[in-house]
Amino acid sequence: MNTEPTNPDSSAADFDRFYGVIPAGGVGTRLWPLSRAAAPKFLHDLTGSGSTLIRATYDRLRPLSGDRVMVVTGTLHRQAVRKQLPEISSENLVLELEPKDSAAAIGLAAAILFKRDPHIIMGSFAADQVIAPVDVFQDAVREAIHTAAQGFIVTIGIHPTHAATGFGYIRAGDPLEIAGAPSAHSVVEFVEKPSEEVARTYLKNGHYSWNAGMFVAPVDLMLKHLEANEPELYIGLMEIAEAWDTPKRREVVRRVWPTLPKIAIDYAVAEPAAAAGDVAMIPGIFNWDDVGDFAAIGRLNPAEENSDLTVMGEGARVYSENASGIVVSDTKRVIALIGIEDVVIVDTQDALLVTTKEHAQEVKKAVEHLKASGDTDVL
Amino acid sequence: MNTEPTNPDSSAADFDRFYGVIPAGGVGTRLWPLSRAAAPKFLHDLTGSGSTLIRATYDRLRPLSGDRVMVVTGTLHRQAVRKQLPEISSENLVLELEPKDSAAAIGLAAAILFKRDPHIIMGSFAADQVIAPVDVFQDAVREAIHTAAQGFIVTIGIHPTHAATGFGYIRAGDPLEIAGAPSAHSVVEFVEKPSEEVARTYLKNGHYSWNAGMFVAPVDLMLKHLEANEPELYIGLMEIAEAWDTPKRREVVRRVWPTLPKIAIDYAVAEPAAAAGDVAMIPGIFNWDDVGDFAAIGRLNPAEENSDLTVMGEGARVYSENASGIVVSDTKRVIALIGIEDVVIVDTQDALLVTTKEHAQEVKKAVEHLKASGDTDVL
Repeated sequence: MNTEPTNPDSSAADFDRFYGVIPAGGVGTRLWPLSRAAAPKFLHDLTGSGSTLIRATYDRLRPLSGDRVMVVTGTLHRQAVRKQLPEISSENLVLELEPKDSAAAIGLAAAILFKRDPHIIMGSFAADQVIAPVDVFQDAVREAIHTAAQGFIVTIGIHPTHAATGFGYIRAGDPLEIAGAPSAHSVVEFVEKPSEEVARTYLKNGHYSWNAGMFVAPVDLMLKHLEANEPELYIGLMEIAEAWDTPKRREVVRRVWPTLPKIAIDYAVAEPAAAAGDVAMIPGIFNWDDVGDFAAIGRLNPAEENSDLTVMGEGARVYSENASGIVVSDTKRVIALIGIEDVVIVDTQDALLVTTKEHAQEVKKAVEHLKASGDTDVL
Repeated sequence: MNTEPTNPDSSAADFDRFYGVIPAGGVGTRLWPLSRAAAPKFLHDLTGSGSTLIRATYDRLRPLSGDRVMVVTGTLHRQAVRKQLPEISSENLVLELEPKDSAAAIGLAAAILFKRDPHIIMGSFAADQVIAPVDVFQDAVREAIHTAAQGFIVTIGIHPTHAATGFGYIRAGDPLEIAGAPSAHSVVEFVEKPSEEVARTYLKNGHYSWNAGMFVAPVDLMLKHLEANEPELYIGLMEIAEAWDTPKRREVVRRVWPTLPKIAIDYAVAEPAAAAGDVAMIPGIFNWDDVGDFAAIGRLNPAEENSDLTVMGEGARVYSENASGIVVSDTKRVIALIGIEDVVIVDTQDALLVTTKEHAQEVKKAVEHLKASGDTDVL
């Protein structure tokens, strides 16, 4: 535990240091063929709210960060992200030439922000998660900012509702005594995706929460751990950051980015920082969903009254008789369903998926198979 | 029973009197969205043979009839039928201005042929049935021609393989002694589609066969019964037939056809003729399928070895994992099926059907619903 505050400002001033960061990567393979390389999960409205996931993420952060929001995404998505977030200036739209995993993406944001102002507290929140109620989330982030200001990398741990095997877990330690952050706890360790049996013991134990990859931290502390654990990555990122707000940006990015090692932020920063006692946790008691598969879309979009069928898609023309499940219609075609239960149908211009809620996780396999067989035009 | 031959010619000469008639009507609603108003069942290759059903019907008849084949179809299908059967002359392509049920369609063919030659024996075979082996069918038709030459309306009764409730039945009487037709029997009556319980008693009884609507009969005898039972229809058809091979055809058809009553050939001719003892039956011991629904398409198109999935459609791009059933692909879209059993998927440009083999019969309901809700663009 780091007991020495990195900044002597008052509690209210902590918020002035805050800068939102939205890593927008990941195709969302299990949501194929809706989500795909050219139109990843974060560019879809998967909740029927009228907002894409990235727009909703931005709108959740804005009351905390104002205009101070940075997005890190692939070059392929520049146009789409600009359209979704016209407020983002080009200095704050960080484009990855190629995917380099989360440590490079979040690390580059930290490095650029550090060069602008070493006192910044960054708050990194993935672009493709669904969170409600928003004010409960924002209260948790406020606690996280106060905690971060005391010299912690703060993660928001999601209260687990079932013995999930698809997420890593955070093991909380003792409560911390931090002004404005009554629910802050120390973090003992991050643990990797468990077996179902182990997950059940975590659930019973009560000290474990899901790792949703939400980090609120002083950028200097992030970089300190990155430098210690991944010096090569750190050096490359700092070189890019140095050039970022200068005319050399393009040249340096093109030269350095392709050389960077691929590693997840959890290994590069979070786990070693936890081992060093530098990580804290704020429990997130809001509803959270990473929309990992089409079964999640069913949960997030309940069927209309007197129906067991969730229908998504503007102008969808669905006729059903004794059918239940989810239909995602990305075309204006008529879709007729007769006598079929818990089905998942995703109808797009060039690809059709038919599966069941139970098999929703296996969609990834189909995508892998299509990739292997050369059907990449639809991926 | 009519024991007086209508023609004193020798047995071999019976074949010279034969004229094939192919009524090509009926959308095949249970095969929607593959089969539809603009592309009815008979215009599809539903067996993977490379031939449409109407072409296969023509090819089955041709060894018996030579060029003497008449087709009765809707005006909408003129181009498609000409393309399928370029051998058919325009005098032998009878176009219905609007559907008037089978008595008008088959009756008009009988009337036109009667005007050309009152000794003709017509053989009417629907354009959308699947029959194999072809030579066994042709042998049955040969027996039917000999029997018809002795003054009978002859139906070919399909040997029932299960207690079907979707067909009418033919109740056979005693064997007839007719040269060249050793299996000819008298017909006691036609019975309508039975309940399953009744169908089971028919199957046990052994004297019942399925009515597939195959009729071989002297045209004068057909017309005699039509005149007796449906005089209004008879008069109208004779007026059209009189004008058919003259320049007045178009005018008379346009004036008379819309006024004709709609009635099935079974009521207008077959049933009363059976009651009069004028109907005979040749047992059809070939395999017969009217391709009534997508389950039939599954039966007729077995899955490839080591697969439980039948895939139809040129250039189909289907990926499946633990899936069984039928996929009919009328587009070049990628179709991915994961963990779904006995499914029926029909993928066309503007409409998609997802159901199961078990519910294949209910497709008709979907079509009715779409009609009622104004989605007629896809019907």
